[in-house]
Amino acid sequence: MPDKFARRMSTVHRSFIREILKVTADPEIISFAGGLPNPELFPVDAMDKASRQVFADIGASALQYSTTEGDAGLRAIIAKRYADRGLTVDPDSILVTTGSQQILDICAKVFLDRGDKVVIERPGYLGAIQAFSIFEPEFVTVSLEDDGPNLEELEAAFKDGAKCFYAVPNFQNPSGVSYSLEKRKAVAELTDRYGVLFVEDDPYGELRFLGEHLPSVYAFCKTPGILCGSFSKIAAPGFRIGWVVAGKETYDKLVIAKQAADLHTSTVSQAIMRRYLETNDIEAHVALIKERYGRQRECMVEMIGKYFPAEVTITRPEGGMFLWATLPGYMSSMDLFDAAIKEKVAFVPGRPFYVDGTGENTLRLNFSNADEARIEEGVSRLGRAIKAFMK
Amino acid sequence: MPDKFARRMSTVHRSFIREILKVTADPEIISFAGGLPNPELFPVDAMDKASRQVFADIGASALQYSTTEGDAGLRAIIAKRYADRGLTVDPDSILVTTGSQQILDICAKVFLDRGDKVVIERPGYLGAIQAFSIFEPEFVTVSLEDDGPNLEELEAAFKDGAKCFYAVPNFQNPSGVSYSLEKRKAVAELTDRYGVLFVEDDPYGELRFLGEHLPSVYAFCKTPGILCGSFSKIAAPGFRIGWVVAGKETYDKLVIAKQAADLHTSTVSQAIMRRYLETNDIEAHVALIKERYGRQRECMVEMIGKYFPAEVTITRPEGGMFLWATLPGYMSSMDLFDAAIKEKVAFVPGRPFYVDGTGENTLRLNFSNADEARIEEGVSRLGRAIKAFMK
Repeated sequence: MPDKFARRMSTVHRSFIREILKVTADPEIISFAGGLPNPELFPVDAMDKASRQVFADIGASALQYSTTEGDAGLRAIIAKRYADRGLTVDPDSILVTTGSQQILDICAKVFLDRGDKVVIERPGYLGAIQAFSIFEPEFVTVSLEDDGPNLEELEAAFKDGAKCFYAVPNFQNPSGVSYSLEKRKAVAELTDRYGVLFVEDDPYGELRFLGEHLPSVYAFCKTPGILCGSFSKIAAPGFRIGWVVAGKETYDKLVIAKQAADLHTSTVSQAIMRRYLETNDIEAHVALIKERYGRQRECMVEMIGKYFPAEVTITRPEGGMFLWATLPGYMSSMDLFDAAIKEKVAFVPGRPFYVDGTGENTLRLNFSNADEARIEEGVSRLGRAIKAFMK
Repeated sequence: MPDKFARRMSTVHRSFIREILKVTADPEIISFAGGLPNPELFPVDAMDKASRQVFADIGASALQYSTTEGDAGLRAIIAKRYADRGLTVDPDSILVTTGSQQILDICAKVFLDRGDKVVIERPGYLGAIQAFSIFEPEFVTVSLEDDGPNLEELEAAFKDGAKCFYAVPNFQNPSGVSYSLEKRKAVAELTDRYGVLFVEDDPYGELRFLGEHLPSVYAFCKTPGILCGSFSKIAAPGFRIGWVVAGKETYDKLVIAKQAADLHTSTVSQAIMRRYLETNDIEAHVALIKERYGRQRECMVEMIGKYFPAEVTITRPEGGMFLWATLPGYMSSMDLFDAAIKEKVAFVPGRPFYVDGTGENTLRLNFSNADEARIEEGVSRLGRAIKAFMK
């Protein structure tokens, strides 16, 4: 039955990363493949306490249906935290979502007709590529340089009739690259000038362990874009709580799409997260995470210097969870993956992050989910595997 | 900017019911408009205990990312509960979803191309109309009779090239109608014969307070259809946990669509629900709900007999949460709504449940969320409002 499924399903595939994660279930494998926060840092006791308070204080209403827009108290806290970082956001412009992945789905629904041009970074975030692909846009990619997108390519893409530009300006997944202040301003200026919707995904922005906090591109845009946030990396991902900030007209459409998608995000998850935020110092908790991830990133960069051949170049992220390596052009990270698994170490080959089929010699390494001893051992194993492939 | 949003958004609107719920926020209004379970019956203490055990026993892993397919233990319990009611279901054919609303979204994604013919009941479930509308199908409606769909209309729709048939065979929302055993078998036979996918939504099936349990249409289909379930009506909706049962090939596509939609359903919600089910007698709890809703339904039917003009006809549901009233043909339930609000009573006018713009003289009454004293008072108010409109 060739026409059994909708046409769109022929272009969308299971997440390659999620498939890889099955291979790496072997506990002897040191995995730099996942994108998991370090569970040792989850505030389990504080969430337990918050949960008890929720059941004791609001009981049944935490178990009932709730509004599509999301818990008003939670949205107020999100707005307050933006204000603390210098960005004024009306709580009524915040829509709580089932993780930030859902934002990508509802944005695609609201904005993308088949064939619309969507600009993404090269390499780009796989979750966005998947969510958008279902709505059959035409992807246009722009090179990601050390300080952000290549502006000439970006302007050319905008001139060519792009509808939106999706990007992760802070410690991008997969590359770890962050936009410089200059490029943030330039991107905002270009999106304004060409009337392109800017979708700014910022799950990692608070996890900066080097350099200074930079404002969101959103803050520089005259026409309001879309700003996405998440509690997954600063508290815990299991609650599936993200949020999106949008202008009034777009907000209303996003609410309609969200309502059709799942009515609303888990009332219980929202209530526990809100209570946790009201009764704990989340900023102190984020500081702990940054300290740990900063050390692990430092260790990974150092060990790569020690164990990888000099021909392998890497990004040097100032935050986030990922680092990006580029092998000599003749090497395939797909082939390397099989050899690495034999050495009991895993990573994500770069190719799935390129919609144009390039990126064969690149790979993503996660540093948030392994301690320094495992990072040293894992990098040394991977170095051995790479060396065996060197010409 | 006429082309700012995707074309599909021009045909989808905010849920009329959710807009109505705002009008009925006034505590003096007795509302039969909502579709809420009675929160007095939520197992708050048991959920509190389950939650404590989750944090104590599995801690961090309840807060981490988890699989798209859903918690294996939870899926095993769902399969076991089907087995107890005589239906054999492989746990690996169950996908946990973010409420059963999400099933409608991912089914539409996986199956519907623009213009595909989707058969729904007339009146039909509003959440499904909304979720499907985003994917721009052509809706074809079949009359709902006291014992299920009109089979001649159904066969005519199937002959005319329908892709799928979406229905709620048990205590339908909005009508309260259930399919007879004969019509269940006939529907299965027709979907098999014409190769139409049957999407069976069953959130209310366990809430039968009159008559005998009848097997799912799913059980009679030779080609596996799609069977949707939910914990929202038998435990609590705030967790947003539903599930879908599907054949292998469809299951894989649904997993891809779910992954792109929100990665996975809240790990915390799933863990608490699983623990609750493992440590409590859910069947005894469901019996409590049925006893209460049965009494409330009995009361509403009796009070309608006492306070409504004889020209108003109603369905007599054997379960679920809703009852359907048909006014004389010259009356508009939209006009009645405004008059009813002045009498401090609310309901949902029937028109939104008809994609063909008919149903002007129908309305939905919810009996799950008000006690008997409020039902009597509310029905008497509504009776007054109706009488004022009689010719």
